[in-house]
Amino acid sequence: MPQRVCIIGVGLIGGSIGLALRRPQAQGDSYIVGVGRDRAKLDRAIELGAIDEASLSISDGATGADLVVACTPVQQIVDHLDQAAATASVGALLTDAGSTKGTLVEAASSKPWASRYVAAHPLAGSDRSGVEHARGDLFEGRTVILTPHGHNPTETLDRAEAFWRSIGAVTTRLPPDDHDAALAVTSHLPHLVASMVAASTPPTWLPMTAGGWADVTRIAAGQPALWREIILENRGHILQALHNFDTIRQRWQKALEADDADAIESLLIAGKAIRDALGNRHPPDRPAG
Amino acid sequence: MPQRVCIIGVGLIGGSIGLALRRPQAQGDSYIVGVGRDRAKLDRAIELGAIDEASLSISDGATGADLVVACTPVQQIVDHLDQAAATASVGALLTDAGSTKGTLVEAASSKPWASRYVAAHPLAGSDRSGVEHARGDLFEGRTVILTPHGHNPTETLDRAEAFWRSIGAVTTRLPPDDHDAALAVTSHLPHLVASMVAASTPPTWLPMTAGGWADVTRIAAGQPALWREIILENRGHILQALHNFDTIRQRWQKALEADDADAIESLLIAGKAIRDALGNRHPPDRPAG
Repeated sequence: MPQRVCIIGVGLIGGSIGLALRRPQAQGDSYIVGVGRDRAKLDRAIELGAIDEASLSISDGATGADLVVACTPVQQIVDHLDQAAATASVGALLTDAGSTKGTLVEAASSKPWASRYVAAHPLAGSDRSGVEHARGDLFEGRTVILTPHGHNPTETLDRAEAFWRSIGAVTTRLPPDDHDAALAVTSHLPHLVASMVAASTPPTWLPMTAGGWADVTRIAAGQPALWREIILENRGHILQALHNFDTIRQRWQKALEADDADAIESLLIAGKAIRDALGNRHPPDRPAG
Repeated sequence: MPQRVCIIGVGLIGGSIGLALRRPQAQGDSYIVGVGRDRAKLDRAIELGAIDEASLSISDGATGADLVVACTPVQQIVDHLDQAAATASVGALLTDAGSTKGTLVEAASSKPWASRYVAAHPLAGSDRSGVEHARGDLFEGRTVILTPHGHNPTETLDRAEAFWRSIGAVTTRLPPDDHDAALAVTSHLPHLVASMVAASTPPTWLPMTAGGWADVTRIAAGQPALWREIILENRGHILQALHNFDTIRQRWQKALEADDADAIESLLIAGKAIRDALGNRHPPDRPAG
C-alpha cells in the first residue's frame, strides 16, 4: 500500500516536496493529499502533479496520513499539526519546513504528538514563491536541518531523516536555539541587508546598476508578509546579528574616513576569505523559464 | 584597411572588448593589439582570439592605432593614455573602462589629447576576472556611461558612442561627478555590504547558508587590490552612500527593538518596491563552465 502523505500548504516548498516524492529516487509509492485555502491553487498543484488530491480542511486532508509535512508560515505550524495529528494515523510522523525553530519546538514539545514530531528546516528557497515554481529537484544536495527536542525516540528521528533524504536532501541535526542563531546570520541578516541596499538606492539610478547590485538585492523581492513573520519570530538573534554586522560597518566607515588603504584592503580580504570558503555550494539560479 | 585597435590591459573587460570586436555585429575589420605586463596572459589572449598581437610596451602597442582603449586600473589610466597618445595615429580616439570618473576626467582634461579622449564606464563585470572569462557578448545590452568633459567635439563623442554600441552596449551620457555619486550607490556600496555580510558570518556556519547568503555576498569574492583602488578613488561619495545606508539600518534596528511588526513590514515593502522596479534587467549569471 502506498504511503499516505499530507502536505499542508502547497506553495514552492510544499509543491516541491510533492514533486520530489514522485521521483524514482524517492523509492516507494506515495499518495499525496495537499491542503490549502485556495481551491484554484490546489487545482493547479494537481495539474502540475505535485499532489494527487486536494482538501480545504486539515483534518479531512490528514485523515489516515502516515506522514504530515506542514509547509505553512511558522506561527501557524503548531496549530496545523494539532489539527492534523487528530486524524492522521496513530504512528504518523509529523514534520515541517518552518524557517525558525526555537519558539516552534518549545510550543510543540508539550503536545500529545510531540514524540512523533521532528522539526525541520530545508535550506532551499527562492525569491520566487508559489506552486508554479515548484521543482522536484529543489532539495537535491540541499541541507535540511533537523532540530529535535528531548522527546524524540531515535527511531522517529531516523524516519524523519530518511524522509528528507528520500527527496534528495542532506540532513544535519542542531539544537533549535543554535539553529536560530545561525540562521539569523546566514539567512535573515542577508535579507535585511538586501532590503537596506535596495531601499537606499534612488529608483532613478536603477539604470546605472549592474550585476552586483542585482545579486546583493535579489532576495529583497521576497514576500514582505512572510518575511515579517520570520523576522519577528527570530528577533533576538537577528538583533545580535545586526549588531555584529554593524561592528564591521563601523570599521569600514573609520577606514574610509581615515583614507586608510591598508585597512580597506584588509577588510576586503577578510570578506573575500569567507566568501571564497563557500566554494561552489550555491551557484546562481538559472533564469526562470 | 582594418581599424587598428590598441587594448591596454587584456583581462575580463579588455579581452571581452577584443572578442566583441570580432563579432559580425561590430561591422568592420579590426586588427587588435593587446598590451599587458604578463607575456603568458597575453599569449593566452591571442589563443582565445581576443587579440591579434601582443606587446609589453604601450608605446609599441599603440603605434599607429586608430582607437586606444585603456582597461587598466583607474589610477593608471591617464599615464597609460599619455604613453599611448604619443605613438597612436594623430586622430586616434581614446577611451577607457575605468569605474570611477571624477578624478580621472579632471586629470585628463589638461592633457594635449584631451579633446580626443571620451571617458567611459561599461557597467558589465563579473566576480570572475582574467581573459579566461572574457566573452564576446559581455557588453550586449549593458549600459556604458560616457562622461565627457567640456573639450570633446560632438564628432568625437559620436565616434566614442559608435564604438561602444558596435560591441553591443547601450550608451548614456552623464557628468563625471554625477556618475561617481550614482556608482557609489549602485556598485560600490553593494560591494562593501557584500563584504560586511561575508565578514560577519562565522565560517563554521557556512553549511547553513542558502542561495540568499550566496547572492548577497557573491561580489565580495572580487579582487581586493582592484576594489581598494576603486573605493579610494570614490571615497567621498561612498561615505555618503554608507551614511544613507546606515540611516535605513537604524530604522531597522529601531523597528526590531520595538518589536514593531508594521514598521518591519513597511521597511520590507520599501526595499521590495525598488528591487521590483529593476525588473529583469540583470538576471543571474549562468554558472561558469
